[in-house]
Amino acid sequence: MTARLPVALAGLGRMGRIHAANLARGSAVRLAAVHDADPEVARSVGEELDVPWVATFDDLIDAAPAVAISTPTGTHAELIVAAAEAGKHVFCEKPISLDRATAVAAVEAAEKAGVVLQVGFHRRFDPDWVVAAERIHAGELGEVTLFRTTLRDMNPPNPAFLAHSGGFFADVTVHDLDVARWLVGEVVEVTAHGAASDPAFAEIGDIDTAVVVLRFANGALGVIDNSRSARYGYECSTEVMGTLATARVDGAHRHNYEWRTPGWASRDLLSNFGERHRLAYIAELEAFAHSVGSGEPAKVDGRAALAAFDLAAAAERSYRTGLPVTVDGRNGLS
Amino acid sequence: MTARLPVALAGLGRMGRIHAANLARGSAVRLAAVHDADPEVARSVGEELDVPWVATFDDLIDAAPAVAISTPTGTHAELIVAAAEAGKHVFCEKPISLDRATAVAAVEAAEKAGVVLQVGFHRRFDPDWVVAAERIHAGELGEVTLFRTTLRDMNPPNPAFLAHSGGFFADVTVHDLDVARWLVGEVVEVTAHGAASDPAFAEIGDIDTAVVVLRFANGALGVIDNSRSARYGYECSTEVMGTLATARVDGAHRHNYEWRTPGWASRDLLSNFGERHRLAYIAELEAFAHSVGSGEPAKVDGRAALAAFDLAAAAERSYRTGLPVTVDGRNGLS
Amino acid sequence: MTARLPVALAGLGRMGRIHAANLARGSAVRLAAVHDADPEVARSVGEELDVPWVATFDDLIDAAPAVAISTPTGTHAELIVAAAEAGKHVFCEKPISLDRATAVAAVEAAEKAGVVLQVGFHRRFDPDWVVAAERIHAGELGEVTLFRTTLRDMNPPNPAFLAHSGGFFADVTVHDLDVARWLVGEVVEVTAHGAASDPAFAEIGDIDTAVVVLRFANGALGVIDNSRSARYGYECSTEVMGTLATARVDGAHRHNYEWRTPGWASRDLLSNFGERHRLAYIAELEAFAHSVGSGEPAKVDGRAALAAFDLAAAAERSYRTGLPVTVDGRNGLS
Amino acid sequence: MTARLPVALAGLGRMGRIHAANLARGSAVRLAAVHDADPEVARSVGEELDVPWVATFDDLIDAAPAVAISTPTGTHAELIVAAAEAGKHVFCEKPISLDRATAVAAVEAAEKAGVVLQVGFHRRFDPDWVVAAERIHAGELGEVTLFRTTLRDMNPPNPAFLAHSGGFFADVTVHDLDVARWLVGEVVEVTAHGAASDPAFAEIGDIDTAVVVLRFANGALGVIDNSRSARYGYECSTEVMGTLATARVDGAHRHNYEWRTPGWASRDLLSNFGERHRLAYIAELEAFAHSVGSGEPAKVDGRAALAAFDLAAAAERSYRTGLPVTVDGRNGLS
Repeated sequence: MTARLPVALAGLGRMGRIHAANLARGSAVRLAAVHDADPEVARSVGEELDVPWVATFDDLIDAAPAVAISTPTGTHAELIVAAAEAGKHVFCEKPISLDRATAVAAVEAAEKAGVVLQVGFHRRFDPDWVVAAERIHAGELGEVTLFRTTLRDMNPPNPAFLAHSGGFFADVTVHDLDVARWLVGEVVEVTAHGAASDPAFAEIGDIDTAVVVLRFANGALGVIDNSRSARYGYECSTEVMGTLATARVDGAHRHNYEWRTPGWASRDLLSNFGERHRLAYIAELEAFAHSVGSGEPAKVDGRAALAAFDLAAAAERSYRTGLPVTVDGRNGLS
Repeated sequence: MTARLPVALAGLGRMGRIHAANLARGSAVRLAAVHDADPEVARSVGEELDVPWVATFDDLIDAAPAVAISTPTGTHAELIVAAAEAGKHVFCEKPISLDRATAVAAVEAAEKAGVVLQVGFHRRFDPDWVVAAERIHAGELGEVTLFRTTLRDMNPPNPAFLAHSGGFFADVTVHDLDVARWLVGEVVEVTAHGAASDPAFAEIGDIDTAVVVLRFANGALGVIDNSRSARYGYECSTEVMGTLATARVDGAHRHNYEWRTPGWASRDLLSNFGERHRLAYIAELEAFAHSVGSGEPAKVDGRAALAAFDLAAAAERSYRTGLPVTVDGRNGLS
Repeated sequence: MTARLPVALAGLGRMGRIHAANLARGSAVRLAAVHDADPEVARSVGEELDVPWVATFDDLIDAAPAVAISTPTGTHAELIVAAAEAGKHVFCEKPISLDRATAVAAVEAAEKAGVVLQVGFHRRFDPDWVVAAERIHAGELGEVTLFRTTLRDMNPPNPAFLAHSGGFFADVTVHDLDVARWLVGEVVEVTAHGAASDPAFAEIGDIDTAVVVLRFANGALGVIDNSRSARYGYECSTEVMGTLATARVDGAHRHNYEWRTPGWASRDLLSNFGERHRLAYIAELEAFAHSVGSGEPAKVDGRAALAAFDLAAAAERSYRTGLPVTVDGRNGLS
Repeated sequence: MTARLPVALAGLGRMGRIHAANLARGSAVRLAAVHDADPEVARSVGEELDVPWVATFDDLIDAAPAVAISTPTGTHAELIVAAAEAGKHVFCEKPISLDRATAVAAVEAAEKAGVVLQVGFHRRFDPDWVVAAERIHAGELGEVTLFRTTLRDMNPPNPAFLAHSGGFFADVTVHDLDVARWLVGEVVEVTAHGAASDPAFAEIGDIDTAVVVLRFANGALGVIDNSRSARYGYECSTEVMGTLATARVDGAHRHNYEWRTPGWASRDLLSNFGERHRLAYIAELEAFAHSVGSGEPAKVDGRAALAAFDLAAAAERSYRTGLPVTVDGRNGLS
């Protein structure tokens, strides 16, 4: 048979359960074992998916040649290092760490160990974006002149999550920043603006709405708008305007149906990222297996993740200071 | 100055007022005088648009080199003949007459007088259909393989109108039958099905819903669906499928705006033909002036109108008998 | 763990491979074994999906409490009977048989054995249709007044397939006929029209285009248009118009992206049913497992399949005779 | 008859000819006379529309109780003052003047004379925006949380025009700034970014692309993106996100038709503002007549125009300095 890459999964929260199901039903991956800080959760998921559940991360590392990490952010870097030092390939949810030095150390550990480290920027694997990206990268739209992207959640996450999210730019905007680098190239300046449309955010010194302006190395402008409180639904869309063509990726609807009543035609809207990017979460794990199997680098490796987080940090600085922040072109480790 | 064709207008009901406004503000036409069976109506419209109002159709004929007729159906043929015999060009709302012999006589009178006779099949002048028609007629979609068209009113007309409408097929379906001939070509067989979704129609022996199947001379199939009771809004759409391409004309929305509330995105729908075909009603009069000025035949002349009504009559026969009705290829006068 | 229903699969052609993958990665089903008339195909799929492959259908029946059948049509009924007599639940691709008596015997065998028999009318499980169906069945659109549905393939299947397809109506239209019964109710009259837009079909006495008009028991009209040669892409759409609301299901696009070049915005179209109904093929197997587990009847059981095929046969008769065909309201076995 | 307001028109360039046709065919306005710096142009248009053409602006003022000004920008203020002092109502294309003091003087002259002064921000009269604005102003979307608007031209204007355009922000962005004030309210901070995607703009020290971030008095963020070089077509769209609902105005297509070829569905795009806002250019003149007739203030009066230009000037300053520019809440004259 075509070997399915066994992957052991740590962290069985909302995102972890999505990964668990996708690993269990993968065509290039399979779920080898699960682990969670809460042993009852691990047992429950293990039983449901018919795989072993283990009590420690060390046991998990022993269970397969690759691990997937969707534990709380604060533990990511440590687990990456432990897995890498054991020679295991790593798929890790973003961010690697909210502390840059810690993140750099984790990336370096993976590079030193020669293992694949892929970070969970799922949009790079979403078929709607991939099909546009291929044409953009093939030069079909000419020189990029304007980039625009939107990421909006229907409703804010719960406060407990927010407290450890790393802030709006590192948690939300970072996805659009990675897409900016993927589709257009390096960013040299970031200017960020934020607001709290929901007073609950103002009270904790946080924001729920942001507009971030980018200047790319080629001189093009980019603009990101983000919200945690869009109310009408979840939305993710991207436009890349070029001298020859313009690509737009959208897709706000949950179903392909319309309900008409006198004077109005209505379509239902997506409510969350899981609905919108279902195929992307499957594809990113398949791609991870492909990198492990082929030796090709991960499409979103540790350095790409660092580069996106450097831009998020620049956005945070810009927002705090009210000034544009210059970013050196050499995003990543150095 | 570029001469605007003076047009004298008879009949100031709903459709007549639309024509009055379009004639008054035309670029190739101008409103020369108005007449209505109700002198008060004529006076009121005349004053509003600053044109003479006249007491008789004979006076109206004297007022301009061309007349537009939107009086009740029963008077159309007689007025066409009178105008034609006076050497005046005629634009007339459909149908020419519910009696075929009378309609033929009117068409022959216009032909004998050498005047332009254009019948109000407005969709032939709607920019959305025209742009598709041009590509279809240029052969860009290859051989036609399937034709589909829809005409639906939001709500039924009032009973007084229905009593003199000529029946569902002659009043509603005839528009789609004309479009079928325009976009695809001659029809050789008609099979019609009808139903009364609103019991009020059943009570008067009429229908408010129909499906009509066409077979074209080239062997292609066509299908028309019509309703007087669509409830959600007015809709008119057409599809022509070909071996090289497929053209679709649609346009259900009243405005280009969307209103999003939690979980739903809604757009407003059109409520009547006036909203949908506003540009077509202007363009058909401009085209009439062009025919008069250039000597080119009208795009929908009397023979084309007869051909469409022959198909409507065939649909009526098919509906009454439950059987397909063969139509001879020589639609029109003969 | 939550028990996944083991399903043994016979027939590994195009549709069979789709089922194999969906069974292997199911959450309520799992692939227990595979069989194909060509042992090499069975071995290859078995190895790829890491399941046993068996040499005979008898061995397959022994391998699991349920079987899925996607063998050539001519073998369906026989395999259903064999499985049913062995007490196994059966999921079978449509049609049960091109011979009505044979189909009836197979349905009766399953009923007698008390096993679940589900037939592969996938659209009943497609989320886009399901969401509309729920609202229709809840009465949200009032009384149905007009039904319209479209099924079009981009390109015709190969001639070898056509020879055993049972004809256009039984192979293509039957899907729309089942949807008609599901969404609106019983059909009492069928009138069918066909044409061969591609001369290759005319040569073998077959058609590639059809328009079928339905009259429902409640008096509403329905219309189906089908093509094997739409050329632009695969399309499946359905509209149900009611007195309170109108539901439309569509979804022609392969991706949610638009490519803009000077003067034009373009979106890509679907090319086949596998792309369009991917989720439906997964959901129908999950629903099958649910019926087996819960004892609830299958959503598309043998009688429903017979009823749809009776309508397809009526369409075929109508097409051959050129006349409407009355269908008795008691569709199904009796 | 209902009195149509006679309007005398000065300036018969591209925009002037649009106004000439709309005045000539208006229902609340009529074209009383025309004037242009080039007497041949004035004569030609006068003959075509059957109205007097006059040699001087003084003669034009005498010709009607209201004047419309679409002369080159540099002459606007002087003509406004002359007309106002003669007691004539004024419709004037934007901008009033590129020099603020001159613009203020013109606005004050009109106010002192007690005449209506309306400035040509046409989008305020576009039905697509008006329908959304009504619901926004009625409070249906709750508190505004994010505003986004786009204005893009397909191709840059000719260099001769650019030299006197007042710069990108005063010529292009000002339209979106006026819409921001109209739909959301006062702006307190502007941050602008610009780029020259076409090297021809860089050579003359100008830009063809901009992103402008707004902060409104209520704390909400806004973002504008503009381009003179969108290449694919003309586009104008606006989104207002609120706590209860989100409104989107769009409308990129020239016709309501789709052309399908194997694998692709294409729709045509608009090429310029004249196509997109045809109805708005008619409605703004009708609204002007309404203000003159009713004594109600113009919907976009001189102070509103000044406020929008103050924001454009702030954007220009922000772009030049690379810093946010604070705007006092008291936009307009003071």
